[in-house]
Amino acid sequence: SVNPDLASERQTASFSVERLTTMLDGGAELTRVRRAVVEAIESDPVFSREHQYFQNQNERYEAAVRKAVYLQKKMHEMGWSEDGPEFTYIYRALAGDVAFLLHRVFMRSISVLGSEEQVAKWIPLATKYQLIGSYAQTELGHGTNLQGLETTAVFDITTQEFILNTPKISAMKWWPGDMGRSATHTVVFAQLYVHGKCYGVHPFIVQIRSLQDHSLCPGITAGDIGPKMNFEHIDNGYLMLQNVRIPRENMLNKFCKVQPDGTYIRHESQKINYFTMTAVRVSLISDEVILPLMKACTIAIRYSAVRRQSKLNPGEEEAKILDYQTQQEKLLPQLAAAYAFHFINNYLHKLFDRGYKEIQERKFDLLPELHAFSSGFKAMVSQYCTAGVEVCLRACGGHGYSLLSGLPSLYTKILASCIYEGENTILLLQTARFLIKCFAAASTGHPVPPSVTYLAAVKPRKCPAKNKLDFLNPDIYTEAYQHTAIRLLSSTAAKLQDLIQSGVEKHEAWNQCTVQLVQAAKAHCHYITVKNFAETVEKLENKTGIQKIMKHLCDLFALHGIFSNAGVFLHDRYISGAQMDMVTVSYLDLLGVIRKDAVPLVDAFDFTDKSLNSALGSYDGHVYQRLYEWAQKSPTNKQMSPAYERYLQPLLHNKLSKL
Amino acid sequence: SVNPDLASERQTASFSVERLTTMLDGGAELTRVRRAVVEAIESDPVFSREHQYFQNQNERYEAAVRKAVYLQKKMHEMGWSEDGPEFTYIYRALAGDVAFLLHRVFMRSISVLGSEEQVAKWIPLATKYQLIGSYAQTELGHGTNLQGLETTAVFDITTQEFILNTPKISAMKWWPGDMGRSATHTVVFAQLYVHGKCYGVHPFIVQIRSLQDHSLCPGITAGDIGPKMNFEHIDNGYLMLQNVRIPRENMLNKFCKVQPDGTYIRHESQKINYFTMTAVRVSLISDEVILPLMKACTIAIRYSAVRRQSKLNPGEEEAKILDYQTQQEKLLPQLAAAYAFHFINNYLHKLFDRGYKEIQERKFDLLPELHAFSSGFKAMVSQYCTAGVEVCLRACGGHGYSLLSGLPSLYTKILASCIYEGENTILLLQTARFLIKCFAAASTGHPVPPSVTYLAAVKPRKCPAKNKLDFLNPDIYTEAYQHTAIRLLSSTAAKLQDLIQSGVEKHEAWNQCTVQLVQAAKAHCHYITVKNFAETVEKLENKTGIQKIMKHLCDLFALHGIFSNAGVFLHDRYISGAQMDMVTVSYLDLLGVIRKDAVPLVDAFDFTDKSLNSALGSYDGHVYQRLYEWAQKSPTNKQMSPAYERYLQPLLHNKLSKL
Repeated sequence: SVNPDLASERQTASFSVERLTTMLDGGAELTRVRRAVVEAIESDPVFSREHQYFQNQNERYEAAVRKAVYLQKKMHEMGWSEDGPEFTYIYRALAGDVAFLLHRVFMRSISVLGSEEQVAKWIPLATKYQLIGSYAQTELGHGTNLQGLETTAVFDITTQEFILNTPKISAMKWWPGDMGRSATHTVVFAQLYVHGKCYGVHPFIVQIRSLQDHSLCPGITAGDIGPKMNFEHIDNGYLMLQNVRIPRENMLNKFCKVQPDGTYIRHESQKINYFTMTAVRVSLISDEVILPLMKACTIAIRYSAVRRQSKLNPGEEEAKILDYQTQQEKLLPQLAAAYAFHFINNYLHKLFDRGYKEIQERKFDLLPELHAFSSGFKAMVSQYCTAGVEVCLRACGGHGYSLLSGLPSLYTKILASCIYEGENTILLLQTARFLIKCFAAASTGHPVPPSVTYLAAVKPRKCPAKNKLDFLNPDIYTEAYQHTAIRLLSSTAAKLQDLIQSGVEKHEAWNQCTVQLVQAAKAHCHYITVKNFAETVEKLENKTGIQKIMKHLCDLFALHGIFSNAGVFLHDRYISGAQMDMVTVSYLDLLGVIRKDAVPLVDAFDFTDKSLNSALGSYDGHVYQRLYEWAQKSPTNKQMSPAYERYLQPLLHNKLSKL
Repeated sequence: SVNPDLASERQTASFSVERLTTMLDGGAELTRVRRAVVEAIESDPVFSREHQYFQNQNERYEAAVRKAVYLQKKMHEMGWSEDGPEFTYIYRALAGDVAFLLHRVFMRSISVLGSEEQVAKWIPLATKYQLIGSYAQTELGHGTNLQGLETTAVFDITTQEFILNTPKISAMKWWPGDMGRSATHTVVFAQLYVHGKCYGVHPFIVQIRSLQDHSLCPGITAGDIGPKMNFEHIDNGYLMLQNVRIPRENMLNKFCKVQPDGTYIRHESQKINYFTMTAVRVSLISDEVILPLMKACTIAIRYSAVRRQSKLNPGEEEAKILDYQTQQEKLLPQLAAAYAFHFINNYLHKLFDRGYKEIQERKFDLLPELHAFSSGFKAMVSQYCTAGVEVCLRACGGHGYSLLSGLPSLYTKILASCIYEGENTILLLQTARFLIKCFAAASTGHPVPPSVTYLAAVKPRKCPAKNKLDFLNPDIYTEAYQHTAIRLLSSTAAKLQDLIQSGVEKHEAWNQCTVQLVQAAKAHCHYITVKNFAETVEKLENKTGIQKIMKHLCDLFALHGIFSNAGVFLHDRYISGAQMDMVTVSYLDLLGVIRKDAVPLVDAFDFTDKSLNSALGSYDGHVYQRLYEWAQKSPTNKQMSPAYERYLQPLLHNKLSKL
């Protein structure tokens, strides 16, 4: 039976939850497939996450390997294939808690960077798991700046081999997943030297562990990098190479090749590879960034409908904490953001599908724009969602701080998404560089990519809103975002220009503008997100119930952004102080409106209790009972601690001197 | 030998690091005592934190108990006493990683709430550790709202006992430290019933475990609440009471008493008790909130002086990441905040010492102000510092995410300070309530406490700054903070008034203003912090080198606040857009100035390598070597995982079907 405090929230939904779920999935058929996959995975005890919060790093690793191996069996049994409709849901159903993710990166890099012969040799081995692959790029001393990698691969013409070395400690490979304990092979990125000349960073296939007994190969030092904030299930590893010899054929040579005589040949553009790297950033946004925020919202909002604390009105029962304005103001903007990012993610995927097709046809015009999109949105969405999950965690007070709430692990995991696949600040600066170029082009009447044509738009000088209701007009707030994005970019472009004209060196001038460039890049992404949300809502016209609540969420997302970044809107008085007061009123009013549908809106995300793995967030709302039951399973309650006999007893029995 | 990249940072310090350290300590003698305590603790292997990042919850608990017990021996050996000058440094030297902290709360609550007879009976037992105490207030269903506690204590006149019960699951005591596995006794807060009448929440001493064999006493169910984001070393516990009988004498009865015939007597004001609760909030700010931020700054800034990534100028060596404006803008404001909060903490301690003296003399006038101070500053400082530690963690990229950096544990621990001893939002609303009252009083010419007299100040309508240098004038920015604090409070007071006059019920009107009230309370605390920093700098006149750099930090703290909360300053055009541009220029200029002294400024915090326990933050800057050495000690590298034989080998050897 469901806790009445939660049941009552569901009786008054203003829309059909099931219809919204299918809309989020992209159709009823996909909902059906997703549920079938989740059911198949969750009903199989081999994939259970029940004791996860009690496991140490070794146990988590073992469980992840077990799941990865059994997944092969499961897929075979179920008839699922890697290119079937089920595949994308498997990872989701496992909540990412599975090994060999880097094995897939290993395969992809061979497919993309390898010659036909290399693909023919390695891909079947990898597909059949006759080896386990990893991907060794990052070093102790070098992450984002690939050109700075220090591992060397020297071509030895006499033996037709490459000799790989880690010349100093900062060159040690560090972080690659699946490498610390599992992988037998890896793709190593190293500076290629032929006849003493450096040709830059290239990828090489290196065997690191015996296929017979898993012992390390000669010249290889490898291991696990130790405890991390999360990802305990992954054996992120280190790798040191000492005169490791590999055959010439092991350099991935679709684009570049060293011939037997040492001649270095570059075949063709690496732009497709460049596109692949870019696409990875977009592909992670959904599973690694948006889903965790949706889960956190589900947990925090359900809990807030069940948790009662203090009386709003004397004489009444204690109030649900969801009825406090401050709690609404914490949680509901995060819920709106989860929807906003779901829609922008759909938009990005369509864009990248189109880009992929064009690039297959050797048309590369879209590339700079796609790169700017993937960098900016990966950074902006991961930063926003990470902050959102933290808000959800803190909004649940002490119980949110318990691992059993599920929130700490969501937070510590999503936090990593701000760092991996490109550190966010650096990514935003790449987007900014694209925007600065486009702005200069647009200002001088040159053509620019469609997403940035607005930079040349004729701008109204003032926001035309006259009352608080005007701020529920998407044209009004979308214009405000657009105006602000242009202003931040143009003022920074002007500063950059001034600095250079005053004699400051170009690179130093750029550095002096980076804080503002980051701001401008974020404003651009925020604007596109708001615009896309508003356009998505408009297209929903037929499903009235859903359109209405989505419109409220869109308004909330937009007004929350204005309310909490008021300075950039007020700066040039595009929005006046009086108008900002209207924004505030509309914003706070919306909280009360959306609060009524808050629980149905998270129900529509359709997470099972097992996938939430949260004592606070279950569908039935029996939080206290569940916290108590789960706590009793903790290893800290399994037996009396040896600390009693060793320390407590001597202390209590006044035998301290005998210690 | 020190990494040259770090050594060079120290050669150019603009001030004497040692002099700044003694200033922070409050004098050379205190520096000496502190260092002696730290040395005594850190040189003793029993207190080692070396393997901490590899330990599970059971091991952490055992270590914390070991340290607590050995600490008793150590204090005896060293001649340290609980009221000696060394005592405050012991906890700091242990980095809080020690058990029995609640034992001290147990003792304090008896001292404050107990009669002379009760103090005479229990305090000697506790001092000699013939029992281990805890403090059982929070319940599963009730945290901040003490009046809502559901545990009952019914007086049984026939046996002269109280019968304690946990009437339902939400009434179970949950979270008390030291209670899960260690405590033999605890102070239980319960609703007192005599002859069927409820007299509200009262404290009772209850024995929960046998002093002989540590088994649970009859009617007691207790255990550990399981894994948390941090504090694994503490056995936060649960406690269920079923008809537990305790003698009448076990109700702490300094203020209230039940006589043998059931007559309930209230003796005198509980205001001193109220003061004690308030003082706890202030006392935790230093060790639990400011020190972690100082440590995080030390780690992140030293690492940023050693880490090199990408080239700022083509042709040059890769640049230290501390030379990037974006990195400076992440870290240096956190450094400035650490100093700002160190000084406000000194201010609060002076204020509370004075308050304590007055209250001893039965003068209670200061109480409301002290309560508002302790609530507001606990909330504001913990929120600010938590965000600051997170910034430091993220600014260190992937290596910051490794537990070995020391940053994740600082973050997960400081995060709890936003929740315990009063959830921050609720605390800020208590400060806001005080401010609203004072504002009303000040507006009508009534006297108000000194810290809020500014609410009645005549305000200039516009900021008088004419150029960027004016914003380095403390009068200019302090006035801006003051103006903004008044504006936010007065506009919210007006909104509250309007709502009530328009017929909205008082409590509902308050609820509708809470988002803005929180903002106003924060602005008040921010203003006081800036003002106090500026005044502190002014008093430093004789020590020129230090005054100069402190002035820069004060400016940075103030301008960072204006830059990042621009909206509240621009709203009524107190600061114009053009002036905000001046703020921005001055703010960004300051980053470059303070960057030169960044390493000396964190060196002055004088943390030993052992207290930082960070592979990234050591004094010598050999980060990569240390990461590698520490990683090798990880239990994940101790042996081949059983996962190999169980899963990997069958997979690789194509024996999946046999699984």
